[in-house]
Amino acid sequence: MQDSEIKIIDVKERILADNDRAAEEVRSRMKEKGVFLVNLMASPGAGKTTLLVRTIRALKDEYRIGVMEADVDSDVDAKTAAEAGAKVIQIHTGGSCHMDAEMTEKGIDEMGVDDVDIVFLENVGNLVCPAEFDVGANKRVMILSVPEGDDKPLKYPLMFQVSDVLLVNKVDTAQIFDFDFDMLRANVDRLHEGMPIIPLSAKTGDGFDGWIAWLKREVNAR
Amino acid sequence: MQDSEIKIIDVKERILADNDRAAEEVRSRMKEKGVFLVNLMASPGAGKTTLLVRTIRALKDEYRIGVMEADVDSDVDAKTAAEAGAKVIQIHTGGSCHMDAEMTEKGIDEMGVDDVDIVFLENVGNLVCPAEFDVGANKRVMILSVPEGDDKPLKYPLMFQVSDVLLVNKVDTAQIFDFDFDMLRANVDRLHEGMPIIPLSAKTGDGFDGWIAWLKREVNAR
Repeated sequence: MQDSEIKIIDVKERILADNDRAAEEVRSRMKEKGVFLVNLMASPGAGKTTLLVRTIRALKDEYRIGVMEADVDSDVDAKTAAEAGAKVIQIHTGGSCHMDAEMTEKGIDEMGVDDVDIVFLENVGNLVCPAEFDVGANKRVMILSVPEGDDKPLKYPLMFQVSDVLLVNKVDTAQIFDFDFDMLRANVDRLHEGMPIIPLSAKTGDGFDGWIAWLKREVNAR
Repeated sequence: MQDSEIKIIDVKERILADNDRAAEEVRSRMKEKGVFLVNLMASPGAGKTTLLVRTIRALKDEYRIGVMEADVDSDVDAKTAAEAGAKVIQIHTGGSCHMDAEMTEKGIDEMGVDDVDIVFLENVGNLVCPAEFDVGANKRVMILSVPEGDDKPLKYPLMFQVSDVLLVNKVDTAQIFDFDFDMLRANVDRLHEGMPIIPLSAKTGDGFDGWIAWLKREVNAR
C-alpha cells in the first residue's frame, strides 16, 4: 500500500514538473507572437460562457479574439463564442478535469494565433484541478458566482491563491443569496492579499466596465 | 511524448482498476454491518452542506447518521453537520479533487460505523473526477443547483450517467435563472433514461419530502 501511494505521488510530481516546463514554452511562444493568453477558470455554471460572450463583444472592435473551449465533452459553448465574433476551437479533454500546458499548446497550434491578439482559454468547470496546472497564460482569471457563496475561498484555497483577479458574477442575485462581500474580501485576503475583486453581472452588464478596463490595462502592458 | 502519454494512461487505468476492487470491498463491509452508504456529489456551492443538514434533521429520530466530510482543505462543513446531530469526521483529500474507495475505507475505519445506520459521504465539490471513482456507496446522489443551469448534462455527462437520483436544489430561484425543467429532463434522459429528478430547496424545505421518501425507501430495501 505504501509503495503504490509513493508511486502515484511520484507520477504526479513528474506530471506537474513536465507541465511547468511546457507552460514556460507556451508563455515564451505567446510573447514572441505578441498574443495575450487568459486562463478563465470557474465552477460549472458560474457563467464562464456568458461572461466570455459579453467580453468578446466589448473587445472585438479593438482586438482580434481567439477562444479555446475546453470541455470534458460537447461543444455547446464553442458555437456560442463563435457567434459572438471570435475565432474558436473546441478542445475535448477526454475525461480530464483540467487543461494542462501541453493540451493548451496543441490547441494553439490547431487554432493558429497569427491573426489574433487575445486568446481566452475557457478551462473545464472545476475549482480544484485547473488551479494546479499552469497552462502558460499571461493572467489567470477566476469567476466566482454569487449563488456559490462567500465561503468558497475556505474550501478551494489554491484557486484563489493562483488567480490574478476575481470576478464575482451574478451580483444581481446577491440579496437573494445573502452574499456578504466583506466576508468574501476577508476570506480572499487571508489567501491572496489585495487580489482585485470585481463584482459584475455578465447577464445585465452591471460592473462590466471595471473588468474590461482591468483586462485592457493588462493586455496593453504586455 | 507518445511514450509518456501512454505511461500516464496506464497509471490511470491501474488506479481505476485498484479503486474498483477497493470499492467492492467497502460495499461488502457496509453490507455486513447493515450500513447504507450515500455518495453525495455536486459542484462547489450547489448546496451539499445545507441539504445534508436538513436531511440529518429529517432522519435523525429514525436512523443514526454518520457523515464523512471530504474537503481539499478546511473543516467548516464538518462543524455544521455535527451541530445538526450527526457523527462526523473530516477527511482532507490533500489536494485531490475527489474521494476514492481507499480514502473512503480509511474514513470508515476512523469514524467507526458500529453505531450508525446511514453514512453520507460529502464528496469534493466537482462534477468531473468524483464521477469516475466508485467509493463503494449503495447509492450515488447528485445535486444540481438551479443557478448552474439546465444544460449541465451536456457538459458533465458521466456524472449524470453514474448517479442514481438527481436533486435539483435552489428551486426557489428557478424563475430568476430561467431554468427549464423540461429541457433538463430531456438532457438527462439522453444520458440516463428515467433517472428520478427531485426538485427541492434545501433552504426553504420545498420538495424535501420527496427526497426523504426516496432515501428511506432505498435505505429500508438494503
